[in-house]
Amino acid sequence: MPNLRYVVALALASLALAAPAPAAEEARMRLRDLGISIGHYPTGKFNAITDVAGVKVGHHTLAGPPGTPIHTGVTAIVPRDDVWNKKVFASQFRLNGNGEMTAAHWIEEAGWLETPILLTDTLSIPQVSDGVVTWMENHYPDMGLGDDVVIPCVAECDDSFLNDQRGRHNLGAHAMTAIEQAKSGPVAEGAVGAGTGMTSFRFKGGIGTSSRMVSKEDGGYTIGILVNCNMGTRGDLRIDGVPVGQEIPQLMPKSKPSEGSIIMVLATDAPLLPHQLNRMCRRMAMGLARTGTTAHHGSGDIAIAFSTATVVPHYPKELTMPVNAINNTHLDPLFDATIECMEEAVDNALCMAKTTVGRDGNTVYALPYPELRKAMRKHGHPVK
Amino acid sequence: MPNLRYVVALALASLALAAPAPAAEEARMRLRDLGISIGHYPTGKFNAITDVAGVKVGHHTLAGPPGTPIHTGVTAIVPRDDVWNKKVFASQFRLNGNGEMTAAHWIEEAGWLETPILLTDTLSIPQVSDGVVTWMENHYPDMGLGDDVVIPCVAECDDSFLNDQRGRHNLGAHAMTAIEQAKSGPVAEGAVGAGTGMTSFRFKGGIGTSSRMVSKEDGGYTIGILVNCNMGTRGDLRIDGVPVGQEIPQLMPKSKPSEGSIIMVLATDAPLLPHQLNRMCRRMAMGLARTGTTAHHGSGDIAIAFSTATVVPHYPKELTMPVNAINNTHLDPLFDATIECMEEAVDNALCMAKTTVGRDGNTVYALPYPELRKAMRKHGHPVK
Amino acid sequence: MPNLRYVVALALASLALAAPAPAAEEARMRLRDLGISIGHYPTGKFNAITDVAGVKVGHHTLAGPPGTPIHTGVTAIVPRDDVWNKKVFASQFRLNGNGEMTAAHWIEEAGWLETPILLTDTLSIPQVSDGVVTWMENHYPDMGLGDDVVIPCVAECDDSFLNDQRGRHNLGAHAMTAIEQAKSGPVAEGAVGAGTGMTSFRFKGGIGTSSRMVSKEDGGYTIGILVNCNMGTRGDLRIDGVPVGQEIPQLMPKSKPSEGSIIMVLATDAPLLPHQLNRMCRRMAMGLARTGTTAHHGSGDIAIAFSTATVVPHYPKELTMPVNAINNTHLDPLFDATIECMEEAVDNALCMAKTTVGRDGNTVYALPYPELRKAMRKHGHPVK
Amino acid sequence: MPNLRYVVALALASLALAAPAPAAEEARMRLRDLGISIGHYPTGKFNAITDVAGVKVGHHTLAGPPGTPIHTGVTAIVPRDDVWNKKVFASQFRLNGNGEMTAAHWIEEAGWLETPILLTDTLSIPQVSDGVVTWMENHYPDMGLGDDVVIPCVAECDDSFLNDQRGRHNLGAHAMTAIEQAKSGPVAEGAVGAGTGMTSFRFKGGIGTSSRMVSKEDGGYTIGILVNCNMGTRGDLRIDGVPVGQEIPQLMPKSKPSEGSIIMVLATDAPLLPHQLNRMCRRMAMGLARTGTTAHHGSGDIAIAFSTATVVPHYPKELTMPVNAINNTHLDPLFDATIECMEEAVDNALCMAKTTVGRDGNTVYALPYPELRKAMRKHGHPVK
Repeated sequence: MPNLRYVVALALASLALAAPAPAAEEARMRLRDLGISIGHYPTGKFNAITDVAGVKVGHHTLAGPPGTPIHTGVTAIVPRDDVWNKKVFASQFRLNGNGEMTAAHWIEEAGWLETPILLTDTLSIPQVSDGVVTWMENHYPDMGLGDDVVIPCVAECDDSFLNDQRGRHNLGAHAMTAIEQAKSGPVAEGAVGAGTGMTSFRFKGGIGTSSRMVSKEDGGYTIGILVNCNMGTRGDLRIDGVPVGQEIPQLMPKSKPSEGSIIMVLATDAPLLPHQLNRMCRRMAMGLARTGTTAHHGSGDIAIAFSTATVVPHYPKELTMPVNAINNTHLDPLFDATIECMEEAVDNALCMAKTTVGRDGNTVYALPYPELRKAMRKHGHPVK
Repeated sequence: MPNLRYVVALALASLALAAPAPAAEEARMRLRDLGISIGHYPTGKFNAITDVAGVKVGHHTLAGPPGTPIHTGVTAIVPRDDVWNKKVFASQFRLNGNGEMTAAHWIEEAGWLETPILLTDTLSIPQVSDGVVTWMENHYPDMGLGDDVVIPCVAECDDSFLNDQRGRHNLGAHAMTAIEQAKSGPVAEGAVGAGTGMTSFRFKGGIGTSSRMVSKEDGGYTIGILVNCNMGTRGDLRIDGVPVGQEIPQLMPKSKPSEGSIIMVLATDAPLLPHQLNRMCRRMAMGLARTGTTAHHGSGDIAIAFSTATVVPHYPKELTMPVNAINNTHLDPLFDATIECMEEAVDNALCMAKTTVGRDGNTVYALPYPELRKAMRKHGHPVK
Repeated sequence: MPNLRYVVALALASLALAAPAPAAEEARMRLRDLGISIGHYPTGKFNAITDVAGVKVGHHTLAGPPGTPIHTGVTAIVPRDDVWNKKVFASQFRLNGNGEMTAAHWIEEAGWLETPILLTDTLSIPQVSDGVVTWMENHYPDMGLGDDVVIPCVAECDDSFLNDQRGRHNLGAHAMTAIEQAKSGPVAEGAVGAGTGMTSFRFKGGIGTSSRMVSKEDGGYTIGILVNCNMGTRGDLRIDGVPVGQEIPQLMPKSKPSEGSIIMVLATDAPLLPHQLNRMCRRMAMGLARTGTTAHHGSGDIAIAFSTATVVPHYPKELTMPVNAINNTHLDPLFDATIECMEEAVDNALCMAKTTVGRDGNTVYALPYPELRKAMRKHGHPVK
Repeated sequence: MPNLRYVVALALASLALAAPAPAAEEARMRLRDLGISIGHYPTGKFNAITDVAGVKVGHHTLAGPPGTPIHTGVTAIVPRDDVWNKKVFASQFRLNGNGEMTAAHWIEEAGWLETPILLTDTLSIPQVSDGVVTWMENHYPDMGLGDDVVIPCVAECDDSFLNDQRGRHNLGAHAMTAIEQAKSGPVAEGAVGAGTGMTSFRFKGGIGTSSRMVSKEDGGYTIGILVNCNMGTRGDLRIDGVPVGQEIPQLMPKSKPSEGSIIMVLATDAPLLPHQLNRMCRRMAMGLARTGTTAHHGSGDIAIAFSTATVVPHYPKELTMPVNAINNTHLDPLFDATIECMEEAVDNALCMAKTTVGRDGNTVYALPYPELRKAMRKHGHPVK
């Protein structure tokens, strides 16, 4: 009787949303607000994946009051409006595959992505996928009749330490809301959307984003990355090389959260072919490595990259399409920028996420700024 | 409002199931009953994937009366009881990826499969996956608490020519039923379970299965294959080399069904390591090629192979496990047997599937035996 | 003392080349001259890989008199003149990897091929590669100074049943000769170049080629395939579906040749991106499967495909290049044509190769036409 | 006329070897001798790949006097004696493929390695491969007769900034010497063997090695890594997180060396299956990322990992072999140890390599210790 479960979930979720905000909510800052920046390429306007023109991000958050069971959500990354008819070149890469990003076969085969990318918790993938199907059916009424059927792209991290994941509280309607509410401009980070219940380096993790721009000479392209961080053990954490995790052994969760996972999403307006986007994915993995995480067996560290430069048509009449492709020999600035952008996206997730008390009182603490500042200074790193 | 959809779907489905069977139902036979067999290895007792000890198959069929919209279903392949705690080595291969088989990243990374494999239509993947989650939660109450969370393995073909796929009539409960009803012994074939609405070579397709046994000297192992056939254009069809499709140009659907797809599932008790199972997957693709299909762009031709020989434990205390591994140099009989088994599994699907009148009167005809016999004889092939 | 080996090899090779031709040389025909053709797409002018404009093939053959030890050679496929500066998009695929095609990492990473492809015997790969390096150094004097260094693409099959492969008789100079002599137009087939010592289906194998053209509406593109056939056991051989191998059990080699291998090279002027060329490679594998071979463990069945449609520049100043890319949805004619072209290329190798008496009197017989005709007729297949 | 080239090369090489050593040769130290160590796992006895029992390393160095053209060499890693008959499980991974490691298809297909691994410069791959063939033929006289033929595993980096690479001075005989001289115990590092002409982070690079041991509870296994470092731009270099490259902008080569490449070889006695060894390769890539390099387009960053735990027999009579396989769930210590071991192997290469004046006076400076110490101290890092 799935219906009953839905009813209960909706009731619980409503309860959660109706709850008053915590009294003394801590103010959180992004990494750069702390005087720390990664690398040397300039960021885009919002230092977010939405700096790539046309890319939108939407969150649907289910965060109950402290100690209640529901701390989860959905995040939608929309590559561009009507991506079904205006596909983007894309590629996936698995650094460690204890996780899921659906549509893997299709994206690798076609070299394109034709749907929004949805992030959520592991057991909610089915319902979130179903929401994508509903959303697509609503927008493309010929789907499954004269038109092809959709294979959603949904990726997960395991938030079961803080969230009653068994309840599968992220419903199809929430996925639709996340897509509908997706917008350009600043992106909410930390314990929001799919990041609501995430834990990273045993600190509160979740959504982080960053962007970089390469010079005019290198094409003036923008790269934006959005991650959902759920990976890493404390001692491994490094920020711009500084062993922050070793310097802050305190504020540990009382029991061990489930292992890891990070979903990494890269958008760019650089004209990359599918096999070149796979190369970008591997650079996201390199940026991730700089944060100190080691991709444990239990971690699902999966990357996807897409380029908005080419509009790949849906069942075109024309035999061929003109593509502007970057020359391999000019990729290095994009590689370099990707790696530093990736590191900062993770750091933003940590810096922005708030202490969360989840199911059964399980508590994951926010990365504390004073200790972070102290660690950075100790290692000769500028910090505000 | 997903609930409404569920209610409607259930009502429609009930209607479908309550409908009287067609008056003059044609009797169907397997390939060998027609005096045709592929290759030279002996089959197992049932000439089915269930000849591999412990493997079970269950179907849930939603087939309305002729001309009604619902012609779809779910098929479950259970590698063995309690596969969560007794995982099987496994690997996937994509011959052409316009399709979906979820858990791809996880299976390739871990080298194992820890769930049943579910087959259904494309847009039902989410609900069927959700049913797998429910089934797993029911059987593993610690999942998402002390235990890990599950990533279901669900694969699809597009049955939208015969089925109101937009209605997503395969519910989670149906997936659970298919798993629960999975059993050893003979396997229903043709327009049953996930095969209900499938079209192959413009004939009625669907579920087919076959098995092979290698000699005692070669280990006495059994290979079983189950496919869900939805691929192929008429002129390409060959049965044991005979160009059957060219010989039977009649009985074509009035409009062109959507393109292709075949899901190929291989089970064996031969002790193959994950990378060796990937080799088996590529032989399934070779067997498929012998049927004449060409893996069109719109086809999702995806294979998975698993071995029951090793019981891979779930979070074992022991550091290592003893594995008995077949030597690469003794794989050839298994390769040869796989290829012929694969071809026969497809042929069984065609031979067993019944003419189906689906949504909007769309009709796909069964492969006609008299014309088949005539074609075989014309090309000097024995036939009954 | 490598020099001594070279001297001996050169002496032996000279001897081989000076030897008189066999007295009663059998005349060989291509498949179509026997009244058999595969599929329905028209061939190009020469029914050869050279039908793709700009593609050239050269052979260097070392075939001693019957019973002498040296029966080997080198075949060069030149994608186009000055391919170093005018690279072609390319991709490789491994159906079974008991073999070698060098530059695999580089081709997959860059998505391009920048050298000729050389075929030879296994142990001659190093010397043939060295010949490619010499040839490249001669033509590109800045290589290794201001210019990049080359990674040759050399692929092998094992001809040790007929050839004194330990002697590594294919020298660098021979590779250079094969490249230099590469030309457009008809391509010598059978026991020539790298095919000199090959065995396929226990018949004499070697070089085969074929081509196909798709219709004007589908782009008017040409596909050409060249193979070096060394794979297959007798009973498996099928020609256009007819079980020729089972019908001709006679004329077997007295001892068992080493296992398998086939190198498959596809050229096309269709504007395919690298990931699309990988899709073509998998269709070559499907065409191969139709010949009946099962890709035994000991077989190196490796495919490479390249497209001449785009000229990929070498260290361009420009950031980007314009590419005309075929839409995925229009690939099917190319897929279909590839599969039938592949099958015919193998058949041409078998039809054109002459009985060869190699080292130690090891003899591999040519596919006999009378028996072939008889087999085809028995199975209702037209034949001249 | 290849013979002439050989003669010249030998003469030049002899000259090089006869040259007096530089007058005031700088003494070099390993990273730990400077008081810096990476991570927290203990090293093996020699902190070298040879800490894995049975693994041997041999170098053949061709280093002329400062300013002369020849600065190159060969390094051999022997997985164990008679590895042809006692194969090791293995897997490769390409982080960036502008490079070559031959036998890629074969290693991935079979899951094993059956030869020594040879490292050299790019254009010397053919001759070094040919040396491996000769060495194998000498040791396995039935090869190419009753026995199978060998596919050597040879990997390269481009040393053309310091070395007359066009001259291909690494001969087959040198490869044989490197294999023959391979031994257990301490491993020479820096500008030795294949590392002789390498440049890394615009400092002198080359061979580096390190090892780690996991605890008794985790199996007491040893991991050893050997790298040939030729990658990285100056500003990117980090040592244990400290931005050393940014702190030492001086001592740059006068012109820009060719781009990158690093070959990464991991040996372990942990009982890993092939697909698990691929996972280890990806952790090598993560360790590499920690050094700051970004895998530029022009870099060939290729990893191979092998396990000595299982003796895979050569053409065994037995159908199966018993394998002891580590459980996936116990891999994390090995992953963690691999990453820190990898970073230290690179650092050892930099710390041990001596300033080299190569062809045309091209000079690459050794990483200077005083500046290194200063940088480490500035960033609060312990150093001697």
